[in-house]
Amino acid sequence: MCETRAVLGLLCETDPRWAVAAANDVGRILVDHAHCEMKAASNALALSTRCVDFPNVLDGLVALAEEELTHFRQVLAELRRRNLALGPPEEDWYAAELRRRSSKARERHDKAEFVITDRLVVGALIEARSCERFKLLRDYLKDQDPSLSAFYGELLASEARHYRTFLDMALEVSGDAAYVEQRHQAIAQIEESVVRSLSSAPTIHG
Amino acid sequence: MCETRAVLGLLCETDPRWAVAAANDVGRILVDHAHCEMKAASNALALSTRCVDFPNVLDGLVALAEEELTHFRQVLAELRRRNLALGPPEEDWYAAELRRRSSKARERHDKAEFVITDRLVVGALIEARSCERFKLLRDYLKDQDPSLSAFYGELLASEARHYRTFLDMALEVSGDAAYVEQRHQAIAQIEESVVRSLSSAPTIHG
Repeated sequence: MCETRAVLGLLCETDPRWAVAAANDVGRILVDHAHCEMKAASNALALSTRCVDFPNVLDGLVALAEEELTHFRQVLAELRRRNLALGPPEEDWYAAELRRRSSKARERHDKAEFVITDRLVVGALIEARSCERFKLLRDYLKDQDPSLSAFYGELLASEARHYRTFLDMALEVSGDAAYVEQRHQAIAQIEESVVRSLSSAPTIHG
Repeated sequence: MCETRAVLGLLCETDPRWAVAAANDVGRILVDHAHCEMKAASNALALSTRCVDFPNVLDGLVALAEEELTHFRQVLAELRRRNLALGPPEEDWYAAELRRRSSKARERHDKAEFVITDRLVVGALIEARSCERFKLLRDYLKDQDPSLSAFYGELLASEARHYRTFLDMALEVSGDAAYVEQRHQAIAQIEESVVRSLSSAPTIHG
């Protein structure tokens, strides 16, 4: 198992064809990436208002949203440096499908905490997958675009940190490490199945 | 016409009973205020993704969201200083009804720009009303709670600035000052009618 998979709890690697497609269409990757950061900020805020009984989680989600907005502005600056327009967001089938299938497979619905815990574990796995893909972008862009490669090298460290932050928040909400571990395993299996259905389109979760 | 009304384009003043009710239930005001800042941040981000063709507006909305999140954290700190819990958000009937009636009364739907312009003018008027109410809170809390009175004194300046920022953005999107003025007048009339229906509950838009 490669280092990224072992550290981040992912059960499969991204199809190598994705990195080739992504490196060949950096403009579309950057546009989609900007929207991913924006969606991550919006999702963190939406989740934060459901976490008012967990002050540390609330604070963590607001801080996360602020960091995602900083990344959004950084990606937007990259686009503008290249004279590329942002354009409207594309649908993120991966994230939507991961949420849909995780929700369908949830065994316990009797308390809000179970729903929030799952949402946080899903958030962790999306960060993990983004981290794995940013690592691929860093490696594939090394010769072609050294400055963008370095940018993805910096960002992948944030994504890895966010993965752990989401799991810490899931533990705080559920208060049960074994339960978080069980949900992590179940949702990682769903994530693997969703990733294996992807078409390797040049978007962050394509 | 009082200064606040003339400067901010509001067509009626808040019922004085609201300020009395608010000053008598500062805890509920602070909880609702925190959620108002969070909703303002979320709304700015939701609107920003519809403004990708207007880079200055996009940047302005993201900056606005970041400022609202800073205010959210300030209000949360005020709550915690008082050992008060945040609690779940209350429904903001005023904002929802203002959006609903403005949308229903919109004459032009043939271009996305008309919808976005209206959303920005609605945003301007919500900021204007918040500014007027923060001014009342500043005045009514002066003896009872000087530090909170000073806090609202600082925040009302931000709300007045946001009012103008929203109108500047509406002008940039529509490209037509007369059209923005016309929509401002129409939506201010709706706002007046919504405000006159309020029950003076101790919430920011109660």
